[in-house]
Amino acid sequence: MREIEALWEEARELSLGTSGGVERLDSPPTPLQFLRDFVSPNKPCVISNATLHWPALSSWSHDSYLTRALSSAHVSLHLTPNGRADAAVPINSDDPSTLCFASAHALRMPFPEALNLIVNPHSTNFVAYAQQQNDCFRSEYSALAQDCDAHIPWATDALGCLPEAVNLWVGNHLSETSFHKDHYENLYAVVSGEKHFLLLPPTDVHRMYIRNYPAARYSYSQDTGKFTLESEKPMRCVPWCSVDPYPSPEAKHSAMSRFPLYFNGPKPFECTIKAGEILYLPSMWFHHVRQSPDAAGRTIAINYWYDMQFDIKYAYFNFLQSVPYQSTHNPTLPGTMSDDLDSDSDCDSFAYGCKDKLGADESVTNLPNASAKEE
Amino acid sequence: MREIEALWEEARELSLGTSGGVERLDSPPTPLQFLRDFVSPNKPCVISNATLHWPALSSWSHDSYLTRALSSAHVSLHLTPNGRADAAVPINSDDPSTLCFASAHALRMPFPEALNLIVNPHSTNFVAYAQQQNDCFRSEYSALAQDCDAHIPWATDALGCLPEAVNLWVGNHLSETSFHKDHYENLYAVVSGEKHFLLLPPTDVHRMYIRNYPAARYSYSQDTGKFTLESEKPMRCVPWCSVDPYPSPEAKHSAMSRFPLYFNGPKPFECTIKAGEILYLPSMWFHHVRQSPDAAGRTIAINYWYDMQFDIKYAYFNFLQSVPYQSTHNPTLPGTMSDDLDSDSDCDSFAYGCKDKLGADESVTNLPNASAKEE
Repeated sequence: MREIEALWEEARELSLGTSGGVERLDSPPTPLQFLRDFVSPNKPCVISNATLHWPALSSWSHDSYLTRALSSAHVSLHLTPNGRADAAVPINSDDPSTLCFASAHALRMPFPEALNLIVNPHSTNFVAYAQQQNDCFRSEYSALAQDCDAHIPWATDALGCLPEAVNLWVGNHLSETSFHKDHYENLYAVVSGEKHFLLLPPTDVHRMYIRNYPAARYSYSQDTGKFTLESEKPMRCVPWCSVDPYPSPEAKHSAMSRFPLYFNGPKPFECTIKAGEILYLPSMWFHHVRQSPDAAGRTIAINYWYDMQFDIKYAYFNFLQSVPYQSTHNPTLPGTMSDDLDSDSDCDSFAYGCKDKLGADESVTNLPNASAKEE
Repeated sequence: MREIEALWEEARELSLGTSGGVERLDSPPTPLQFLRDFVSPNKPCVISNATLHWPALSSWSHDSYLTRALSSAHVSLHLTPNGRADAAVPINSDDPSTLCFASAHALRMPFPEALNLIVNPHSTNFVAYAQQQNDCFRSEYSALAQDCDAHIPWATDALGCLPEAVNLWVGNHLSETSFHKDHYENLYAVVSGEKHFLLLPPTDVHRMYIRNYPAARYSYSQDTGKFTLESEKPMRCVPWCSVDPYPSPEAKHSAMSRFPLYFNGPKPFECTIKAGEILYLPSMWFHHVRQSPDAAGRTIAINYWYDMQFDIKYAYFNFLQSVPYQSTHNPTLPGTMSDDLDSDSDCDSFAYGCKDKLGADESVTNLPNASAKEE
């Protein structure tokens, strides 16, 4: 549909840039600059030298500091077989085409034990990621409060409120977060290691092939050292992005033919956030996250979620999402909104009151919880 | 098309309000408040007690002050038979269905003479309106500069720039401005009399029935005391809103059946701006303006045009405008985008490279000059 493709191009040409890069600031903006140049136009940026005054930037390099400060803290640890939690994955290996939305096996344990599992992935059958998007930095990790700012001052002034949630993330190079969006303005500060983001603006929603997937959860057995994937009962559907931007070489051809709007469209915005830098990740932007570890094998970050405004931009987004994509350029392409991934999920006809398969994307319109809270 | 109608509703429910009223502030906002609560969400507001320190609020009540200050100034005066310039009107009275976009007869004359024509409409065969959207307050009317602020300080701080143009408007109760939009952030300050605005958000673009009209210009003959309407040669097309929100009683039935999306949809936002108040009229909002005079028979206002950001909102607007409205609710309604007013204009097949009649609205997509600069 050429109108939708024109929108992708125009958003880039007018405002977001066509290079695929993300604008960089050498120092924090004033609240007015931040609001005018980035929040209002819904445009990401990377701010260098943003947190150099945080004690965390040096003290968290040492496992010994963290394990001492958090010696008595119990934290949530998420286990997966491959680092891919909260993603659309095959529900069993015999049938790679039947996908589900898989959550991690969540455990609570003392932080020193959790850190040991994170930094020694080769001694286990799983990938461990300490992450819980429930304001955990101000609860489970409150012993570290004095090492960072409780909020980002220029963002708080610009947005007119304190963060709704502050989350800590401690992982290794094996964890990745699949494409999704959040209904928050996100200030993402890396403390140790690096995070690699792929970003796609909300105008590009059709390129994400959002579909309803039945929810399932990994269960790890210490006895067998194996994971099983168990569907939730009663069945619950989760609308989620279908695109894996980094398919394995053998899966690449299939991915490109199933998701042509993603692979053949404008390339996503790409940036790497290093320790001391902050990414402003605007509300409603789709993002995919990978990470590189520091010398001690960890990537540590804190993100600040501020309430977004549900304004005319959000209404436009919902309208866009309600318009089905129908390719007029190349009718032989399989990449239309309605025919693609129906076979992946029995969910579409149940979920959220959507009435038919064609309505896959309508089913997520107007649902503020249409995307889970994620990185 | 229920998706487009859902957009009208959602923009109101989420952000703009459903009452049809415009939010009022008792005093000027801070730059951050203004940017966060109004400019970024593209939402109008009325600010009371905004200009009480302007000498103009008292001194301009007296014709004698103005004629003395501007005794040697030559200004532009726009003459029409009925107060309706820059509007879609019948090109001749024998054929009321063939419309054109009619500009006023423009004259230059000493200000005292112009003011005399404005305040004595019953002694002439025309309606006179001193208005020229070419930064006239800082040129023709520069003798009045010290009576007002050169810019609106909190808006300048918020928007990060000085106004691109500052215009003065001196008219009487007979002048009105037809629905249109501007590609500017507009701060509209009333100095004497009152202005009555109808406002429609950019989400409602299909309700305006924008069509291409052949440009014409009124010519007033002092000899005959009559106007003629002359088509521009070579033909030039102007995309303009077709809806007159206040049709005469005998035209009302026809208007309601030709423009059902306007008359049957959500009511427009409505506000009256008095002396000392400022309307923030967001970029891309459709507005219709009438006025009430002060005791001396004049309505005087200044508006400040600030550059708008051509950002994701603008890209979304162009996308919306490119989607044809096709009513699925009531297919017997005549109010679709493509079939309605084609008979009003031969222009659609010429203008701006549009290729067919169906493309009426596409022809204005992406054209920053698709609306003339107006009130």
